[in-house]
Amino acid sequence: MTHYSKQDILELPNLQRMHLINTCGGVKSANLIGTISKTGVTNLAVFNSVIHLGSNPPMLSFMLRPTTVERHSYSNFIEKIDFTVNHIEESFVSEAHQTSAKYDNDISEFKEVGLTEEFIEGFEAPFVKESKIKMGCTFVNEYLIKEHNCRLIVGEIQHLLVENGIQEKDGFLDLAKANSLGIIGLDGYVKTELIDRYAYARPNQDLKPLKR
Amino acid sequence: MTHYSKQDILELPNLQRMHLINTCGGVKSANLIGTISKTGVTNLAVFNSVIHLGSNPPMLSFMLRPTTVERHSYSNFIEKIDFTVNHIEESFVSEAHQTSAKYDNDISEFKEVGLTEEFIEGFEAPFVKESKIKMGCTFVNEYLIKEHNCRLIVGEIQHLLVENGIQEKDGFLDLAKANSLGIIGLDGYVKTELIDRYAYARPNQDLKPLKR
Repeated sequence: MTHYSKQDILELPNLQRMHLINTCGGVKSANLIGTISKTGVTNLAVFNSVIHLGSNPPMLSFMLRPTTVERHSYSNFIEKIDFTVNHIEESFVSEAHQTSAKYDNDISEFKEVGLTEEFIEGFEAPFVKESKIKMGCTFVNEYLIKEHNCRLIVGEIQHLLVENGIQEKDGFLDLAKANSLGIIGLDGYVKTELIDRYAYARPNQDLKPLKR
Repeated sequence: MTHYSKQDILELPNLQRMHLINTCGGVKSANLIGTISKTGVTNLAVFNSVIHLGSNPPMLSFMLRPTTVERHSYSNFIEKIDFTVNHIEESFVSEAHQTSAKYDNDISEFKEVGLTEEFIEGFEAPFVKESKIKMGCTFVNEYLIKEHNCRLIVGEIQHLLVENGIQEKDGFLDLAKANSLGIIGLDGYVKTELIDRYAYARPNQDLKPLKR
């Protein structure tokens, strides 16, 4: 087993440190966030930090890092409020990752990488037609995380679109069945296989697998 | 395709809404966070929201929800500062999930579920011996996320332990090879398979897969 102290980590070459620390927290969600500028240019960017915040009202959050690419998204949803969150699937993983290239402000990543815009009535931001699970959200709040100058963005879910055959009776979306990917670090994409779901755990009671 | 509006979501039965919104953001990381109380009782709890914050200095963050179970962890790392983050693997997935049962304050989840405590010199919180990737962190800051009364906890990585054979030359930890699991929603555990890693994307240049 390799033991890195904080000092060992700080002394690593930049890229090695970045890959190590980006991967060590575990598998992350793989989403494309879609926005539109006030002049009507659509934008699409990979985010690996979307997490659930609460269900009543339905909200999610994600971390925005101080990079050029993500700032296009940021200025868009500050201006327009609406944004979409679209699951990345294996069938368009390379198109999705290509959105992380630094395109100019007046260029739409949709067209550049070959993904299809889709709009729903009364909602300004573009969805990714190819995604089987996608959400239309409105910007609610942001928190400056001063330690790394990140912003935690909080959004409320206004629309949730789910392809048929993915949702179980109790509401659970089987993301393995949906082929929704996960991300390792910055550049590793994984598919998933469901091991099991477990019933609510109680002290001194055997855990009940729900699928086996 | 099913289209849920915010109003449709709010009208769902509680459990269905909870499962739907907990799963819709994508696959999440699967970690056990270990702490110790001032009276020396160890504590272990599942967290599915650990994400990387920045690598220099190495920091991560996670969301603490206003529940009884997680509050044991919270009071511990407020008092002791040290906590550990340990990847959940398939070999001990049911033991890991069982830690989510509401045990009393004076009971250690390690002993109750059958996982093994491991300590390193100069660090107070317990590691999970069975984990192949684990971190010893210190509490740095917390941010109250008022929308759902959650707390975003920021920790600095002081120790990072990685089993041999997992890390690639450029620093990347292959979490699929490590058998680190992901979580869907609250109760679904998935294993992962690496599809590929991609080189840094640039406009008007074909994306280069690193593994194929």
